[in-house]
Amino acid sequence: MARKIIIDTDPGKDDAVAILLALASPELEVLALTAVAGNVPLSRTEANARQLLELGGRPDIPVYPGCMRPLVRNPVTAEHVHGETGLQGLVLPEPATPPRPGHAVDAMIDMLRQAAPGEITLCLLGPATNLAMALVKAPDIAARVAEVIWMAGARSEGGNVTPAAEYNVHADPDAAEVLLNSGIALTLLPLDLTHQVRLTRERLTRLRMIGTAAARAVAVMFSDADGTPQREREQEGIPLHDPCVIAWLLRPGLFSGRRINVQVETGSPLALGMTVADWFGVSGRAANATWLNQADAAGFFDLLLERLARLP
Amino acid sequence: MARKIIIDTDPGKDDAVAILLALASPELEVLALTAVAGNVPLSRTEANARQLLELGGRPDIPVYPGCMRPLVRNPVTAEHVHGETGLQGLVLPEPATPPRPGHAVDAMIDMLRQAAPGEITLCLLGPATNLAMALVKAPDIAARVAEVIWMAGARSEGGNVTPAAEYNVHADPDAAEVLLNSGIALTLLPLDLTHQVRLTRERLTRLRMIGTAAARAVAVMFSDADGTPQREREQEGIPLHDPCVIAWLLRPGLFSGRRINVQVETGSPLALGMTVADWFGVSGRAANATWLNQADAAGFFDLLLERLARLP
Amino acid sequence: MARKIIIDTDPGKDDAVAILLALASPELEVLALTAVAGNVPLSRTEANARQLLELGGRPDIPVYPGCMRPLVRNPVTAEHVHGETGLQGLVLPEPATPPRPGHAVDAMIDMLRQAAPGEITLCLLGPATNLAMALVKAPDIAARVAEVIWMAGARSEGGNVTPAAEYNVHADPDAAEVLLNSGIALTLLPLDLTHQVRLTRERLTRLRMIGTAAARAVAVMFSDADGTPQREREQEGIPLHDPCVIAWLLRPGLFSGRRINVQVETGSPLALGMTVADWFGVSGRAANATWLNQADAAGFFDLLLERLARLP
Amino acid sequence: MARKIIIDTDPGKDDAVAILLALASPELEVLALTAVAGNVPLSRTEANARQLLELGGRPDIPVYPGCMRPLVRNPVTAEHVHGETGLQGLVLPEPATPPRPGHAVDAMIDMLRQAAPGEITLCLLGPATNLAMALVKAPDIAARVAEVIWMAGARSEGGNVTPAAEYNVHADPDAAEVLLNSGIALTLLPLDLTHQVRLTRERLTRLRMIGTAAARAVAVMFSDADGTPQREREQEGIPLHDPCVIAWLLRPGLFSGRRINVQVETGSPLALGMTVADWFGVSGRAANATWLNQADAAGFFDLLLERLARLP
Repeated sequence: MARKIIIDTDPGKDDAVAILLALASPELEVLALTAVAGNVPLSRTEANARQLLELGGRPDIPVYPGCMRPLVRNPVTAEHVHGETGLQGLVLPEPATPPRPGHAVDAMIDMLRQAAPGEITLCLLGPATNLAMALVKAPDIAARVAEVIWMAGARSEGGNVTPAAEYNVHADPDAAEVLLNSGIALTLLPLDLTHQVRLTRERLTRLRMIGTAAARAVAVMFSDADGTPQREREQEGIPLHDPCVIAWLLRPGLFSGRRINVQVETGSPLALGMTVADWFGVSGRAANATWLNQADAAGFFDLLLERLARLP
Repeated sequence: MARKIIIDTDPGKDDAVAILLALASPELEVLALTAVAGNVPLSRTEANARQLLELGGRPDIPVYPGCMRPLVRNPVTAEHVHGETGLQGLVLPEPATPPRPGHAVDAMIDMLRQAAPGEITLCLLGPATNLAMALVKAPDIAARVAEVIWMAGARSEGGNVTPAAEYNVHADPDAAEVLLNSGIALTLLPLDLTHQVRLTRERLTRLRMIGTAAARAVAVMFSDADGTPQREREQEGIPLHDPCVIAWLLRPGLFSGRRINVQVETGSPLALGMTVADWFGVSGRAANATWLNQADAAGFFDLLLERLARLP
Repeated sequence: MARKIIIDTDPGKDDAVAILLALASPELEVLALTAVAGNVPLSRTEANARQLLELGGRPDIPVYPGCMRPLVRNPVTAEHVHGETGLQGLVLPEPATPPRPGHAVDAMIDMLRQAAPGEITLCLLGPATNLAMALVKAPDIAARVAEVIWMAGARSEGGNVTPAAEYNVHADPDAAEVLLNSGIALTLLPLDLTHQVRLTRERLTRLRMIGTAAARAVAVMFSDADGTPQREREQEGIPLHDPCVIAWLLRPGLFSGRRINVQVETGSPLALGMTVADWFGVSGRAANATWLNQADAAGFFDLLLERLARLP
Repeated sequence: MARKIIIDTDPGKDDAVAILLALASPELEVLALTAVAGNVPLSRTEANARQLLELGGRPDIPVYPGCMRPLVRNPVTAEHVHGETGLQGLVLPEPATPPRPGHAVDAMIDMLRQAAPGEITLCLLGPATNLAMALVKAPDIAARVAEVIWMAGARSEGGNVTPAAEYNVHADPDAAEVLLNSGIALTLLPLDLTHQVRLTRERLTRLRMIGTAAARAVAVMFSDADGTPQREREQEGIPLHDPCVIAWLLRPGLFSGRRINVQVETGSPLALGMTVADWFGVSGRAANATWLNQADAAGFFDLLLERLARLP
């Protein structure tokens, strides 16, 4: 039976790939997309989510707009990475399907309460605002979530917004704190891992040969990987962060990590949003998350390309 | 025409007096009570709110249960001040009316959206969690609130939970930050003011002569003011914090203050929840709140006693 | 027998008055002046100290230059209060006596080690850098200091540099932390007290009638108290902060306060340098300082004027 | 001509190896050892320094005792790593030579002022307290130091005291801040690098074959590297942190790194003492240190063993 998931997302180019990967995978049943402000404002992430569902041939999946701002602090967007629309370079038709009425926070709460405990897994691809809000509004749902898989954090790689902090945590560190303290089973895919999963020129070439609309869309958004080989952090290729979350559900054997204690810095201006990940057990604090730090990038791309070929 | 208010509250003994004062005042139309965890857990504050409405003869006013925990941090209650039930010493019948379905956060949002802009004033008697959640979930309501009157903060008096922090802010400093940054017109009644408004033995004697059930209830909860004269902070009498919020709506002339900048400390363990109130304009930051710091206590008690006599 | 004191100082107009008051008082034996950067840079405070000793007829008292910067942070001066020279408006001859060789930190350590335990009292009129450095360099001196009297901090008055912080603590909060944790008997004279001790126009008139050079110098520096009555914080007159330290040694009956716990905020940008003074014993932390908060201003000025008349 | 160095140290087992390596190297002229509290209290580090000089045949080199405590905070020692004496397992004769009179802080200042600008290099093997104190006491020396080489910090490896912080920085983060802001040319050798330089069983065997007293002493202190292969952080062998500082002066080609900005966290309890090292230039802050992160461990041990063979 397919695993039921809700994808909470701020698409975002790599979010887009993650969503398409999920839609292409019969092992997963995507119950809904919940949109959150992040890479670009909510009005865009919500519309992008609907466009991506139509691109993937699944306009029937509901999209719920969620929080327009972080839990406590001012919003920070990342248009320099994802373009003004969030799906840089990709032109998709206006979505035919409207968003669902109701707020993502309530949709999450309702779906979790109506499902059996442990039935629904949450995939977080952006700041954790929506889930944190749901946990504050309805603490009972913590016991009903199967687990949370979140692209978030950084340890050995350092951050991408500041030297200490990764974007999804930095954008709403307070939401991260709520989640880390919730007692929910949590798996984190930090930059330490996602920076190993790179769309290189060679892989882009393979992607272009697939020929489906979905594959073409991904190739368009990441066409920077072509030409003079795009490099990020002195290595070839562009990291595909968010799709790792879905790949972890599909092929856990592609990744490895360890259960450790993770705390988030919410007080210091210098280290704001840093995940203090106790990889070597120095702190004596009990583990509260699984921290994945190794990926089989070749295996990941074999999976991704195979799946993108299945979509329209 | 009566001024429409929503009272957000964690009763709490002085919350109870504030609610009764509002119910007794034809100048105010109490649209709803929204309950929040604070002095005691939500299950008690919510039930207490309904009991107090019945005591005041207004079981028709809806009560909405709200947040069971602060926005980010762990809950801190204050049973040592308010007793296990929150209404120390007072025994009221089980409420006949159930709470309304729906969450206080949504009730706030819905009422504000359905009313005209500027029609509804919010009176906050506890931690600001419910309103902060509403502002994060539905930022549009900021432009619809007439103003917020909040019993919160301390400057010259120092705190009552720590040397730096007053309870309502300390219990959810992040919610306070959301509110202070919201742009909503905000009036704060800090300990600096409420410590001037003391139920002394002499005033308790006058209260006992009123004879209504409401007055008796207040007298029971504050019977400590009797006997060896109860003293708090080396002065006679027990401060009545929350009723000042309602009195300010009824008789603004009883109070005075100044528009200043107020910030809340959310990072430092030592100063957590402190309101940094720039009374002398040292910081150059723009004013974002009216800080009331002087009260006419005699006038307040004349008003309170006159009103409690009108209730059943 | 006269009480032996070292005055650590950053003159500074009110420091100047404090020094003159000490020189005029036979109850005190001023062993040395140690200069520190503060109100103005060290090169000025050190020279001012020598000029003031000559003005007071005591060029024999040694002056030791000390720290040019705070313990950890960058220096902040206050020329807008004290003028470019630190002794605004006062023109004194170049000092005939050079500073003593050696550093104030070492001079403090040496004097304390050579004296009997409990023989020397330290009067701090500026940031606590010199003493903190001495305590780190030579922890044994903590047991040899009789007590430290420091003009520092603010509670009910709020700060004068930020809404939370008083200048002497804010200028070197880390030094304040070292001192507060040193175990040395400590008396603090905060703004709460010194703002009660105001040079009003009437008192300035009395000062001008004295006729000594010392009294004339004070009158010149504070001539702002004349004319349209100078007001600070909405009250008439200019507070004379530092001389209260000396007056406390001469006439403790002019002041009152309480032994409490005092902590200093060193982490939060918002509250940096705040003294968290637990006046009401909310924290349960053990007392580590005497916090003076009431002054007999009339008595203080009687003392000051009487003493300034004794000087050359 | 030999390069003149002062070694500031808290021996400490790996400090001992660094000192011996320096004594064995004609390229370096060790002007003095300055001792600081750190791994063990000052009384031990100072005596250990003298014992090590005698072991190395250089009792003529002066040892100056320095600070017994950090700049602001309470001391934290590390006897669990270095044993009660600091030189675990090693029994050396009581030193025949006494420490020099005078404080390490003053000795540093005096030597730097008496030498030509840029003549003296400082090697820091422990917390930076002594140098920070010297910089606060005598800011002019910043322009006289050639450069500072410090074993300190961690980025990709994480900390060894907390998940965020390395010992030498964590033990006195405020001193680190003074040094990082001093403008002095600074090279940092963090755990990222020193964890690559491991005394394995095979290398220990080679060490034991040398036969000099110095080599034997090192072998005794690190005999844990024998037997069931000692592992630290899941790799074979025991890191030799401090000797890398000396090796860097002798053979810079063994190491590589990059000039970057480094900040230290002094406010947050969670991240206290973390070096925020901006390896990828995310912050836009100007470089203030050279951060070495790659070592040729084989080359290092060839050097070390060759040099230990030259000593008595």
